[in-house]
Amino acid sequence: MPDFTDNLKPRYDGTMTLQAERDASAINVNELANHLLSRDGFLERQEKVLRVLSKEKLFKKDQQMNLSRPERYHLGLARAKAIVRITRREGWDHEDYKMCEYLNDEMSPYHLHMTMFVTTVREQGSEEQKKYWMPKILDYSIIGCYAQSELGHGSNVRGLETIAKWDPVKQEFEIHSPYLTASKWWNGAMGRTATHAIVVAQLLLPTRDNPTKYEGFGPQTFIVPIRHAESHQPFKGIAVGDIGPKYGYASMDNGYMLFDHYRVPKSAMLSRYAEVSDETGVLKRHGHTAVVYGSLTFVRGQIIMHARLVLARAVTVAVRYCAVRRQFRDRDSKSDLDEEMKVLDYPTVQIRILPLLATTFALHYTGEMMYSLYHKSRETIEKGDFGPLAELHSASSGLKSLCTMLAADGIETCRRAMGGHGFGGGSGLVGINADYLSKPTVEGDNWMITQQVAAYLIKKMTSAVKNPTAPPTDPTDELFQFYLKNRDHRIPQNVVLSADINDQAIVDVFQWRAADLSFRAYEARVVEKKSWTKLMIQLHTLSRAYSEQILVTTFHNSFNNTTSTLSSPAPAVLRTCFRLYSLYTLDQFASSFTLTTAASANSIYALPDAILDLMADLRPHAVKLVDAWSIPDWLLESALGRSDGKVYEELFDMAHRRNPLNRTTFNPDWRSEEIVLGSGDAGHGLLAKL
Amino acid sequence: MPDFTDNLKPRYDGTMTLQAERDASAINVNELANHLLSRDGFLERQEKVLRVLSKEKLFKKDQQMNLSRPERYHLGLARAKAIVRITRREGWDHEDYKMCEYLNDEMSPYHLHMTMFVTTVREQGSEEQKKYWMPKILDYSIIGCYAQSELGHGSNVRGLETIAKWDPVKQEFEIHSPYLTASKWWNGAMGRTATHAIVVAQLLLPTRDNPTKYEGFGPQTFIVPIRHAESHQPFKGIAVGDIGPKYGYASMDNGYMLFDHYRVPKSAMLSRYAEVSDETGVLKRHGHTAVVYGSLTFVRGQIIMHARLVLARAVTVAVRYCAVRRQFRDRDSKSDLDEEMKVLDYPTVQIRILPLLATTFALHYTGEMMYSLYHKSRETIEKGDFGPLAELHSASSGLKSLCTMLAADGIETCRRAMGGHGFGGGSGLVGINADYLSKPTVEGDNWMITQQVAAYLIKKMTSAVKNPTAPPTDPTDELFQFYLKNRDHRIPQNVVLSADINDQAIVDVFQWRAADLSFRAYEARVVEKKSWTKLMIQLHTLSRAYSEQILVTTFHNSFNNTTSTLSSPAPAVLRTCFRLYSLYTLDQFASSFTLTTAASANSIYALPDAILDLMADLRPHAVKLVDAWSIPDWLLESALGRSDGKVYEELFDMAHRRNPLNRTTFNPDWRSEEIVLGSGDAGHGLLAKL
Repeated sequence: MPDFTDNLKPRYDGTMTLQAERDASAINVNELANHLLSRDGFLERQEKVLRVLSKEKLFKKDQQMNLSRPERYHLGLARAKAIVRITRREGWDHEDYKMCEYLNDEMSPYHLHMTMFVTTVREQGSEEQKKYWMPKILDYSIIGCYAQSELGHGSNVRGLETIAKWDPVKQEFEIHSPYLTASKWWNGAMGRTATHAIVVAQLLLPTRDNPTKYEGFGPQTFIVPIRHAESHQPFKGIAVGDIGPKYGYASMDNGYMLFDHYRVPKSAMLSRYAEVSDETGVLKRHGHTAVVYGSLTFVRGQIIMHARLVLARAVTVAVRYCAVRRQFRDRDSKSDLDEEMKVLDYPTVQIRILPLLATTFALHYTGEMMYSLYHKSRETIEKGDFGPLAELHSASSGLKSLCTMLAADGIETCRRAMGGHGFGGGSGLVGINADYLSKPTVEGDNWMITQQVAAYLIKKMTSAVKNPTAPPTDPTDELFQFYLKNRDHRIPQNVVLSADINDQAIVDVFQWRAADLSFRAYEARVVEKKSWTKLMIQLHTLSRAYSEQILVTTFHNSFNNTTSTLSSPAPAVLRTCFRLYSLYTLDQFASSFTLTTAASANSIYALPDAILDLMADLRPHAVKLVDAWSIPDWLLESALGRSDGKVYEELFDMAHRRNPLNRTTFNPDWRSEEIVLGSGDAGHGLLAKL
Repeated sequence: MPDFTDNLKPRYDGTMTLQAERDASAINVNELANHLLSRDGFLERQEKVLRVLSKEKLFKKDQQMNLSRPERYHLGLARAKAIVRITRREGWDHEDYKMCEYLNDEMSPYHLHMTMFVTTVREQGSEEQKKYWMPKILDYSIIGCYAQSELGHGSNVRGLETIAKWDPVKQEFEIHSPYLTASKWWNGAMGRTATHAIVVAQLLLPTRDNPTKYEGFGPQTFIVPIRHAESHQPFKGIAVGDIGPKYGYASMDNGYMLFDHYRVPKSAMLSRYAEVSDETGVLKRHGHTAVVYGSLTFVRGQIIMHARLVLARAVTVAVRYCAVRRQFRDRDSKSDLDEEMKVLDYPTVQIRILPLLATTFALHYTGEMMYSLYHKSRETIEKGDFGPLAELHSASSGLKSLCTMLAADGIETCRRAMGGHGFGGGSGLVGINADYLSKPTVEGDNWMITQQVAAYLIKKMTSAVKNPTAPPTDPTDELFQFYLKNRDHRIPQNVVLSADINDQAIVDVFQWRAADLSFRAYEARVVEKKSWTKLMIQLHTLSRAYSEQILVTTFHNSFNNTTSTLSSPAPAVLRTCFRLYSLYTLDQFASSFTLTTAASANSIYALPDAILDLMADLRPHAVKLVDAWSIPDWLLESALGRSDGKVYEELFDMAHRRNPLNRTTFNPDWRSEEIVLGSGDAGHGLLAKL
């Protein structure tokens, strides 16, 4: 219905503002976009899939936040099914399918089926098992989930309580939950969707001497049908369902599952690596599982590449909105006629957003490095020889931890940097924030997995101390040997000296800090024999410092590689990003750099001014840099982040034209129990839901 | 329906675990609870209101997260109305009413009516206006909202675009929105509930010489009827509605509103301080509004006291859950029979939760100090003389900024420290997190309002430099004079020296840092005349350092006052909290303490070990300390935080018995468009909502 609001315009034109921003930077956006996103044809694929998906009404996003959680699951399932149909209709491949999931931007109830479920069968199933199951999986004739974590145990897989007892007479396993805390918990797609589950359970075999006594053989994987093919009701002996609303992931049915002496045939146990022998009932192991570590490193590379895109999305919204948003005239302005300042020109806004913009590139080059190392070493990996990947594999848990945390925290920082409108549904960051936050926790809590990195570094340092002149096998050996040779006469480096920034010194101080913290950890643990638990905070810090060193070193290496081919001013702007990311990190952990005699105190004190100057250098290119990340408006689903700058028009339209709550008239009078005006029963329907 | 899950128990008994925790500490919880919460009869009132409210079905909380956002508003309005009815039925006073809102724990559509709306009429209305409006307000015959911020302007009130033009012929104001960005925006209760609004608009009066030309007189407040008393439809010339879903505040109808030459009578302008004269059409001002600053300080005290309770709630959940939760055996454990460790015994968990536990007390003593200063100075305030409150008023914006940020970030830190279950609806922190996060932004973005503190400190330092021996009028004068006298021969203090912690040195280094940063800001701005905008980050840091100094000093002062009367071991445990809060903060901003020559580098390096020791000291008392905050289970609404430790029983019951999604059976087969099994139309209903 037309009304007087139709002719109103915002006081400042956002479209012209963004155009002026773009005109002011000479960066070639297409060239930079290709530099960042050409791997595996990402850009073309994004465009192709977007063209189709954005036309489907089912994938319209702007009413999602008005749905209840049960409705969100309904919708999520409908979309999951539609994506399979569309993929077939269009003749797309699996990469296209994954692009659908990325652009659809919600956790699909089918997601685990084509990731954890299929991967586990493929990697841990025997040839016979794969022949039986793979066609059904690839055809989506069954829908699988992965039931590992339990109510009582997440990180500690060895502590899982679900048991699988071998019955040698019937040649079956009895899967059973002896405690309430044995309930499978959190497992995606299990709550309502899945027909089958990979169940991780403690294998128990009868002892030779006394068949009524059982011995444990640790967690093994079983493929278990959980729901009836037609009725979709759980089988007898299984209690399964959705765990209820949670932080984010509204479209996903994270589930619980308990077993009551539930029997499965012998063939249920995935037996590529271990098998119960028919005759003797003992466990036969075939080889070991080292080969999966290669793909684990690859998966962690993927997580980092995804983290960079998610962070880029938040930064895109924040940069564009803060370039359009104006508030207050310059306090030192003499004239009342000056326009209000763009908030992106406030250093207090810059310091929150621009280091994160720089971080997107830091993540990118490390993700790229992981990919190319993986591809280079693919052949040797298949033979169980990691080659150059060995070192990276050990580091990758620390990198996964750091990068997902940088992205999760970064989204929230961007959201807050936008002031009031950052809280609105129009920010486009409400959902992504909730969904992404779990990333630092799933697949191993970040605080837990960093201990693996620390243990690895202590081991490396121990050998370096024992044999300081052994031929180095990787960069960490080299670093530790350099450190041990020089630690007695270290001169703290000047990173910044009277406005001059020394890039090589930046790399040096990050590496030196990591080496020094490794040495301290070695001393505490190996020499002084301190308890592991007491050292945990220190070890967490070590892992972070080591990962930061990788990000900084890899970013710096990129200047000698690909970035130098970009046309001006991109190489210089990327170097500014390198410096900003590095100096900002230095400043955040300043005392750790002085404590380890990595950096000079004078250059630490010079950081705030240097950071201000770098941000001023980067500022004119901010809009074009986020443009290069090529996040489609359809994916952003953000009034604030629109590429055309029509921030206020879109915010108002969402509220005035598209908010279903505005279609109801209410009765605010406390004397009446009636809630909706003209129909007295609205309150009662609601009460029944409580 | 009974099933096999009924007899299952968790592997470890949570109730016994929490009991053992409580037995292990000698703290007298009741005594400490009274020490913390006896002001204005808080504890008794909480109990009284809880007894009534928890019996009302409408206030049951456990299905809230399953409702859609429109339903959440329905429910919010129904509850708002019910609270007024219950308050009258029980004969309760306004403090009881506020307790209802606190325990109900969602933003009520009536909330602004009894806060901003009534306060503005009371403080800015003339006697005649108050006589007319106050009875209608107190009776809830009208429901008001407060329409200040706009789509284009939040923090910058002088930049508001809505205008109110005086028409001397008709003796009316014409309220008008010349731009889309003039739309009122975010204003709570305006979207669907309110019948009236306080509208803040730029007053325009015709100039004497040329009545077709207008002159601006800045923002003024108008009381404006916006919806029809019976139909509740907006009046002609007004476009008003709810802005749509957002981060948190689902039950509140934050609104937008535009005016099309909307006319209100002369009496609409609140005229205690300013009035348009009938004859001449000029603005007559009566006195000035200094008196409201007293109550602003009081409100900021309230915000801090609320922040401490909100943070206490998150800490309560985290402490109890992490005492019940076990994961991994000690890595150095020699025996396979050892039980898994309570996660609260991991330093990596302690470092996230225990400093926040200490922070709740730091906030408490500063809030108390603000209250008692306000009450002491009440009489002189009425006369416009702030007395001892003057200094505190200037500091209070910085304190509000710091304390709300500590609470908002602290909730999220607690949630993440709980690992996977922290993401579940059973954490009880999903809603509070979303709702509370806006606190650091509303009523002035924290990054903006800290500039007021910095400007004040620069002014104080300027006078101190000019006249370093003038009689000090407040603690800041004293501090600055002390600083100026000693800055040339400062010896950085040893806060920690070989396991010995010097409390007086702690206070000294926080104060010295604040003074030194004030001096640097003074030099940069007054001596070197640097631009304000360039200094903004530095000034924000200054505000934070100054506020931290107040928290530390006030906490330390409490030892000479009230806490000394508590029975052992409470005084010692509170001192541990003081040390932990202080040293943790010192460690976080270590380089700022060395840069300002406040603390010695050696004592900075000793901090991590000292913090570990303090956490070990505090650990046995953690459960009893959170018990003392007396957050009712009904308010916590948290499986993880239950006072009886039945964490897993409750999580499972929520999922298995009370999750409505589990009542529907779905069709996961992609070949079928049917979503719900047995009824093909479920998907269509959903599609209509998109």
